[in-house]
Amino acid sequence: MEKDVKFAVLGGGSWATAIVKMLTNNQEMVGWYMRNSDAIEHIKTQKHNPNYLTSVEFKTEQLFLTDDINEAVNFADVLIFAVPSAFLVSELKKLKSPLKDKIIFSAIKGIVPESGLIVGEHFHEIYKIPFENIGVITGPCHAEEVAMERLSYLTIACADKDKAELIAENLSSNYIKTNISKDIIGTEYAAMLKNIYAIAAGIAHGLGYGDNFQSVLMSNAIREMKRYTKRIHNIDRNINKSAYLGDLLVTGYSIFSRNRMFGNMIGKGYTVKSAQMEMSMIAEGYYAAKSAYTIKESFKKKVKTPIIDAVYQVLYENKNPKKVFLDLTDKLD
Amino acid sequence: MEKDVKFAVLGGGSWATAIVKMLTNNQEMVGWYMRNSDAIEHIKTQKHNPNYLTSVEFKTEQLFLTDDINEAVNFADVLIFAVPSAFLVSELKKLKSPLKDKIIFSAIKGIVPESGLIVGEHFHEIYKIPFENIGVITGPCHAEEVAMERLSYLTIACADKDKAELIAENLSSNYIKTNISKDIIGTEYAAMLKNIYAIAAGIAHGLGYGDNFQSVLMSNAIREMKRYTKRIHNIDRNINKSAYLGDLLVTGYSIFSRNRMFGNMIGKGYTVKSAQMEMSMIAEGYYAAKSAYTIKESFKKKVKTPIIDAVYQVLYENKNPKKVFLDLTDKLD
Repeated sequence: MEKDVKFAVLGGGSWATAIVKMLTNNQEMVGWYMRNSDAIEHIKTQKHNPNYLTSVEFKTEQLFLTDDINEAVNFADVLIFAVPSAFLVSELKKLKSPLKDKIIFSAIKGIVPESGLIVGEHFHEIYKIPFENIGVITGPCHAEEVAMERLSYLTIACADKDKAELIAENLSSNYIKTNISKDIIGTEYAAMLKNIYAIAAGIAHGLGYGDNFQSVLMSNAIREMKRYTKRIHNIDRNINKSAYLGDLLVTGYSIFSRNRMFGNMIGKGYTVKSAQMEMSMIAEGYYAAKSAYTIKESFKKKVKTPIIDAVYQVLYENKNPKKVFLDLTDKLD
Repeated sequence: MEKDVKFAVLGGGSWATAIVKMLTNNQEMVGWYMRNSDAIEHIKTQKHNPNYLTSVEFKTEQLFLTDDINEAVNFADVLIFAVPSAFLVSELKKLKSPLKDKIIFSAIKGIVPESGLIVGEHFHEIYKIPFENIGVITGPCHAEEVAMERLSYLTIACADKDKAELIAENLSSNYIKTNISKDIIGTEYAAMLKNIYAIAAGIAHGLGYGDNFQSVLMSNAIREMKRYTKRIHNIDRNINKSAYLGDLLVTGYSIFSRNRMFGNMIGKGYTVKSAQMEMSMIAEGYYAAKSAYTIKESFKKKVKTPIIDAVYQVLYENKNPKKVFLDLTDKLD
């Protein structure tokens, strides 16, 4: 079966580029959709993405590049979505080809703003894809280190273990190790929440808190993530595994993380609007903070989330970050 | 009672200096023993420690400075030991004054090489101090950030809650928050183990592994620490609290950690001996690796500790770090 399974990656950013690179280690031909046709022409002639991970050289004969999402969908059995969550709905609107027989994996790590759902749930609810055909690809993994072929571990989550293994095999190489998991809900929520915690780490840094506080913040964040994911989907889950704690750490400690950078600007005194304008792209955690807060407010049995609350107050209630974080320090231990 | 309780800190390094600083916020007079009498003269005239945290200015009228350990012991009811574990036994040999009525807190974070015991156990076994008079002060806390009065959280562990609270109150200030705990064994072992994991992080960095791998290493380290401390002392312990996970992170992610630096040199090709000679002080984790390995080899029911094993093989079995870590990557997930 495996020889015949074809993959397409949807997205033109750094994480999409990294996933295409991984797949070309195992697949003769990989479908790759991006809306930017200039970038496609560049890749075809110069063999690298002009905008992201420019050091990665592709054998272009291995790439089926297209700026028509329907061509990519028709090409492949497995679709890996790696567009920013804020653009997913507008991309999906272009679809004429049916998704119902496809295996759909999300590499998005965010909430779909229009539906307030994580990506897996969105495909399940809106496109009636059964959960056994839906999965998640999660880190801890900076795309930049994939470009350098530095050893990275991915977790591939799917209710159907065979499909998780299929995807895992096709992403694995001498620099990519893979774990499989059944916890698609938990891994997606964790991937989303960690961006909020990275914003919190950035705000704290911007306000002048040091490494001692950062470690306390991360220690509290992982406990908060455990409570939150348990309330969302109560299964036996070791929150200290790479897909949860590792992913939190690689983002929370990264000075390159867009979410951390966004928080840092706010901590340093930028307004939310000016910080967003200063950055070319809106940090995923900005949307995630609103969604995560709204979702937890709907819980019948309340869950204590002081860090999410603090980030929400700063981003959406126009509260003074210095004051909010001073209050937060009393809620951590 | 509290007003009459007097404190003495034993040690002249950066952590000792930071603890004296904390105590002077709450105590009129703090005893401070260090063997270096030149440093004592310097503090008396220049109001700062010439060798560590030189920016911290003391009111010298608050300090009872002495280079005679017996004077410090006679002065105080609570003794806080903050000498390197390798020097504890030689310091204690100078003692003529009895310890039996003293409250003894360890800020050492290491194994006593001569006895193979953690500091609390050492005082209990050798000096017959009852466990309710023994405690541990642990981070996550870089002394350098205490000097800058950056917010830090300490955990004060003691079987006797009242004594933990007494010590906690006397260390607290606007930049020091304290938690109390009953888990003296677990916090001491965690503080010791984290230095081994910091060496592992340094070796990995020196070998060229990146941030993605570092996060996987820390995610595996905390699970290993949980298994290890559970085998040592099986109580209900949330390993993600600051005293365990926070302390691991602040050390494992610190580029200033001596343990991480030591590992980094070995990863870059220094021999163990030359790395030790290059550094003015032997990293605590060097001894900890041997002790932790020896102790776990004595467990009747084995516990899986691939990271400790790897560090032990590199430091004590002269194995090639590159090869050892390549094997290690297959044992992590």
